[in-house]
Amino acid sequence: MRGDRHALDALRAAIDPIDDDARRAALARHATLVKPPGSLGRLEQLGAQLAGIAGRCPPPVPESPAVVIAAADHGVHAHGVTPWPQEITRQMVRLFCAGQAGVNAVARTVGATVAVLDVGCADPPPAHPLLRSDRVRAGTADLTTAPAMSRTDAIRAVCAGATMASDLIADGADLLVTGDMGIANTTASACLIAAFTGADAGQVTGPGAGATEDALAHKTAVVRRALDRHRPDPADPLGVLATVGGLEHAALVGVLLAGARLRVPVLLDGVITNAAALCAAAWCPAVTGHLIAGHRSPEPGATVALDHLRLAPLYDLRLRLGEGTGGLLAVPLAQAAARTLREMAVLDELAVDGFS
Amino acid sequence: MRGDRHALDALRAAIDPIDDDARRAALARHATLVKPPGSLGRLEQLGAQLAGIAGRCPPPVPESPAVVIAAADHGVHAHGVTPWPQEITRQMVRLFCAGQAGVNAVARTVGATVAVLDVGCADPPPAHPLLRSDRVRAGTADLTTAPAMSRTDAIRAVCAGATMASDLIADGADLLVTGDMGIANTTASACLIAAFTGADAGQVTGPGAGATEDALAHKTAVVRRALDRHRPDPADPLGVLATVGGLEHAALVGVLLAGARLRVPVLLDGVITNAAALCAAAWCPAVTGHLIAGHRSPEPGATVALDHLRLAPLYDLRLRLGEGTGGLLAVPLAQAAARTLREMAVLDELAVDGFS
Repeated sequence: MRGDRHALDALRAAIDPIDDDARRAALARHATLVKPPGSLGRLEQLGAQLAGIAGRCPPPVPESPAVVIAAADHGVHAHGVTPWPQEITRQMVRLFCAGQAGVNAVARTVGATVAVLDVGCADPPPAHPLLRSDRVRAGTADLTTAPAMSRTDAIRAVCAGATMASDLIADGADLLVTGDMGIANTTASACLIAAFTGADAGQVTGPGAGATEDALAHKTAVVRRALDRHRPDPADPLGVLATVGGLEHAALVGVLLAGARLRVPVLLDGVITNAAALCAAAWCPAVTGHLIAGHRSPEPGATVALDHLRLAPLYDLRLRLGEGTGGLLAVPLAQAAARTLREMAVLDELAVDGFS
Repeated sequence: MRGDRHALDALRAAIDPIDDDARRAALARHATLVKPPGSLGRLEQLGAQLAGIAGRCPPPVPESPAVVIAAADHGVHAHGVTPWPQEITRQMVRLFCAGQAGVNAVARTVGATVAVLDVGCADPPPAHPLLRSDRVRAGTADLTTAPAMSRTDAIRAVCAGATMASDLIADGADLLVTGDMGIANTTASACLIAAFTGADAGQVTGPGAGATEDALAHKTAVVRRALDRHRPDPADPLGVLATVGGLEHAALVGVLLAGARLRVPVLLDGVITNAAALCAAAWCPAVTGHLIAGHRSPEPGATVALDHLRLAPLYDLRLRLGEGTGGLLAVPLAQAAARTLREMAVLDELAVDGFS
């Protein structure tokens, strides 16, 4: 899609809520299957959501999951909010392409395709068939002193993510997982989550990839300074994204919008993708029904964001790697949720009196 | 193996604790991989456990999981502890073989083999290639008035499970999942859990597959009566199993012992398999290190049992179907835990100053 406001407004306007008839039909179907009613627990609601997304019951079993890893750098890195050098972003993109990162091992486990989007690394990573380069700018500006990016840049990054997701779906992906890479991006995530939920900087800022206690106090002060500087207005989601977000957050917003538009379920990963989900939901509330919270990150902002979205995570394994790892591990749960609805016998096929 | 006490004692004596050197080597290896230390959360401890079980680091990735569904009936069914007719046990065995039950849908999702063991259904299910018939007796006796089975029968059932597990492993299974089928078996599970943990009947008895509130009070009274009648001694695990257990519990004890003996990890399912794990651990404490708690069942006895075993479940999706479904859904977590240890690059291969 074109990287302009008009294209983006058209995308948002085309997103429908999930089909509540199909959702309710799935819940009703579960009550007929060979098992005690409700005994598949959370899988039953998940299956019903998948039916609502697909608009039919039973829903198709997702067989071709794909993780989109949006990568970009952050001007706020200069403030020492993380012990990791900025160059790691680019190096990790290289490793994703080489198949040697955590996300690759997990993607192989669940049979998912890995796709990487450079939407603004400080230095361009080496070209690779798994890497799409749609660079909006070479990292964001320092959000404590200026908007992280212009509105135009934010729109371009959203459109880059939406285009990537649409292309993956056109190539057969039937379940999207959101992933991220960007040294210092838990700082921008904290800003976004505070802006959209009204929470205090102290409630949403966590150690990220390894800030010590002193460093966490500093990081929290940086988040607070950014919020005080910009006073982002949650009624203006694009403005929030542009002033205190990251380019990868913007791209992930596009992934979520495109997934919802094309009725392909989207599994969220950790705090960075939770922050992007808040932005997408603020911009287009119908998106939320299409999102599945894969896991609960231990970053405090993740829980604040998920509570605000009223999304209950499927599990909590204290994963805080990002890259999409936590979302990918929930892929089999989504598959099982659809498969049980499709493949289990119904009670009244059993030749037993009193079983139903 | 022969179904006698001597064979069983030899099996127990041959079980070693997990290899703590390999376990610690895996934790040390995790600290060298391309990620923030500890950022794979619970997967890191799980991978270390798999290394300890395999006796090497990194551990092999389990590629051929198999679920063993032990099926049997219960004399206590006559007391109306469940709304389901006893005949359902046999009918569900037939469905497992036909591939139409919940466990089959989940097994297909994670690529697991399904194997069914009739160790004592009231009426024999129809023969089928997926079904092994090793019937010790046609269901247990009424445990409120007599021992559920003789010690000799309990030993035979344990050996039936151990033989089934050993045969699956000989055929290539490298990860076992425990499953169960037996109408009324949450009642026997509550008795076992109370006996091994010292908990009161009221703490360990739950609604199972659908008891109403009134029915739950009655079921709890039945459990209490059985415990008062037999006063099972946790220092005599075989005696506990014989007096208040089920034939499928006994067979599952055998599966756990054989898995531990052959150093193949075993994923527990819900409350029935948790009860079997208590028995196996009481009989042979070295078994516990080889067990992985797949999920937390909402049955209250499950949490009492897992706490006693000091096993932390991997997730909690309010699953209470049994059959092995909850254990199977954790298969990809075990695979990812091993795969990240094997396949992720190490930090010092990255050409970045200050990354390690």
